[in-house]
Amino acid sequence: MLKPGRVQEEIRRRNLGTLLRHVHLGGPLSRAVLAERMGLNRSTIMALTAELTSAGLVREELPGDTGRAGRPSLVVRAESERVYVLAFDVRVDRLVAARVGLGGTILDRREAVRARAGADLHDVVEVLAGFAREMHGEAPPGPVCAGVGAAYCGMIRRGDGMVRFGPNMGWVDQAFGTELGRRLGLGLPVAVGNEAHLGALAEHERGAGIGFGNLIYLHGDVGVGGGIIVGGRLLDGDGGYGCEVGHMMVNPYDGRPCGCGSRGCLEAEVGEQALIDAAGRSGELTGREGVRAVVRAAGEGDLAARDALCRIGDWLGIGVANLINLFNPGLVIFGGMLREVYPGSAAQVHERVAANTLVISREVRLRTSALGDDATLVGAAELAFADLLAGPLETLALLTPPPVPERRALTRP
Amino acid sequence: MLKPGRVQEEIRRRNLGTLLRHVHLGGPLSRAVLAERMGLNRSTIMALTAELTSAGLVREELPGDTGRAGRPSLVVRAESERVYVLAFDVRVDRLVAARVGLGGTILDRREAVRARAGADLHDVVEVLAGFAREMHGEAPPGPVCAGVGAAYCGMIRRGDGMVRFGPNMGWVDQAFGTELGRRLGLGLPVAVGNEAHLGALAEHERGAGIGFGNLIYLHGDVGVGGGIIVGGRLLDGDGGYGCEVGHMMVNPYDGRPCGCGSRGCLEAEVGEQALIDAAGRSGELTGREGVRAVVRAAGEGDLAARDALCRIGDWLGIGVANLINLFNPGLVIFGGMLREVYPGSAAQVHERVAANTLVISREVRLRTSALGDDATLVGAAELAFADLLAGPLETLALLTPPPVPERRALTRP
Repeated sequence: MLKPGRVQEEIRRRNLGTLLRHVHLGGPLSRAVLAERMGLNRSTIMALTAELTSAGLVREELPGDTGRAGRPSLVVRAESERVYVLAFDVRVDRLVAARVGLGGTILDRREAVRARAGADLHDVVEVLAGFAREMHGEAPPGPVCAGVGAAYCGMIRRGDGMVRFGPNMGWVDQAFGTELGRRLGLGLPVAVGNEAHLGALAEHERGAGIGFGNLIYLHGDVGVGGGIIVGGRLLDGDGGYGCEVGHMMVNPYDGRPCGCGSRGCLEAEVGEQALIDAAGRSGELTGREGVRAVVRAAGEGDLAARDALCRIGDWLGIGVANLINLFNPGLVIFGGMLREVYPGSAAQVHERVAANTLVISREVRLRTSALGDDATLVGAAELAFADLLAGPLETLALLTPPPVPERRALTRP
Repeated sequence: MLKPGRVQEEIRRRNLGTLLRHVHLGGPLSRAVLAERMGLNRSTIMALTAELTSAGLVREELPGDTGRAGRPSLVVRAESERVYVLAFDVRVDRLVAARVGLGGTILDRREAVRARAGADLHDVVEVLAGFAREMHGEAPPGPVCAGVGAAYCGMIRRGDGMVRFGPNMGWVDQAFGTELGRRLGLGLPVAVGNEAHLGALAEHERGAGIGFGNLIYLHGDVGVGGGIIVGGRLLDGDGGYGCEVGHMMVNPYDGRPCGCGSRGCLEAEVGEQALIDAAGRSGELTGREGVRAVVRAAGEGDLAARDALCRIGDWLGIGVANLINLFNPGLVIFGGMLREVYPGSAAQVHERVAANTLVISREVRLRTSALGDDATLVGAAELAFADLLAGPLETLALLTPPPVPERRALTRP
């Protein structure tokens, strides 16, 4: 419950966080625009900006050419070079690491192709920590690392980033977050999230979903992950394991076997191998390369490839229609490999949506991901920035401890 | 954004609402318990209680026999006889109206059996308004009507209570909320909600779902409605049309035709008629009576009836497993006719949940509705109380306008 005593302090903290979030997500903004967006007067904006400036989180500067005569207003800009996070992305087919500045600028980036199965926790963590060391080594001296975030292609326990179930890598109960934090040695916890959850957050904040309060993000690779925004917030459920759209059973009769042990799950019917098999290319390229080969062949007129995309579109459409009936969203986003598959399957998806959703729910847009394969990495960066944006000065104070006073010798020499 | 000037006022308003909500939902509570639940000190609780008491919303009194020696603490109790709402429930098979006192006591109640199809908006509204007049006539003089709520078995537009689609009564775009409000003549708007949404709210606040932040309520009758609580709030989606679990396609091959025009929807496979047909009783009793006959026969050993319940349980289990994968809820509640069907179908539901949900999501309880057929009515009452609980004094001020001063004659006689 609210107690009057702590209220002023709490308001200031929230306002600082909100202003920083506006600049972080919206780019350089004038005080006038900030005042309007936050519903505060300009003198309050000035005071908040001054606090954030002296903390080194933003700076005020002249904007680029405004194309208008007269003296332009100063804009408030995030200090992207001074404050950054580390973002990691453990994908089915590669490991990615980035140094991302406040404001969302990717300052540096590394990636390595990963063999599909059997990667050991320690190997993965070692590669990621190595990337972080390299990026640190090449960074100019001085900037503050404000957080660490990681996306992982599996089910993640809230709180400690334990991978409970990562079928693509054969991981069960692997202490990924803890181990990565230990190996990085920055004294910072690693915030870990499911890749599709983080893709949804990223598209919601920086991609195709800006301004949508209710959206569904479908992330295709070996399987199909989901991230669902309900009323502006990620749906996570009791344990953080919600949004498992891939295991919605759509084909109860002759369904394809699924990695979860069941049959006929959405991801069994529309995942990478389903498409490749449907195109009659089972012995050829696998994974993303195999998907691309089918999509390319369809574009060149290959009928089997076209039929395969239609078949995938039909099952995908059933899944999407079910989700529209459940969530009445404004937007459905196709990400990961579904971004490449969707254009060739869109007619079937639309047909199913028209046939299987209630008329009233149909005011929904279907789009491909705007952030592409970086959606999950960008989501990991946003996860890493969360504490800083919730309480900028408190978080910064924890990161940059005051200089330790010199110890006086206890006895004179 | 928060502005310091209005903060004290806002805190007081919220605290008054929160205290009233605790007493409304939790029954008579001592100041000590209120202080603990709200995290406030006792003198603040005393001041808040005094304000609510002088507004006539609560009173303090000695509790019943506490079974302990010594002077018992006073308890704060809702003024159930002085402040009430009107709640209406337009069900598939009947019309219900109730006068519900603050604290949730049903003070008076009327109901009429309704023919299943073709009821006209004006007929329905006339019956409900007639019930309201009767209940007003028999009520003691003095109490304040603080709101009006109605549950309707169809899709409801937010804001004005327009029934966009009520397939069971053949309603499309019928101005139910507006028309009922006009006919009641109380000068109060009617808050209308979908019956399953309101059933979910009622079970969450007063029934099987107390304390669960994430739950799914399935309401069976002709079809299957859903109400889903995500993070303590009802999922409604962009237009308020979310939670349509009944139109989740579960049987894409030889699905039964559904009232929505599609085939193989969950409600086509597990609704009343599906059970009756599966039991080989198509020409006999219909609706709820038909369902009860099948359940009764199964209890008496009729094999066809037992098989029918198993068949329904299998489809229901697919739907429930899909929902568990999506929402990672703590609880699934079976309401409406599913409350009667579930016990005979539970084995199949559990089997499907075990086979088709990811291991990690399985910590979920399956229960029947605690409020039974009154869940939707109770939900309508809670909807009617919402404004009062959000801002008790402001709402009350709007309801009981200050006495109009006597007009002086402009010229002396």
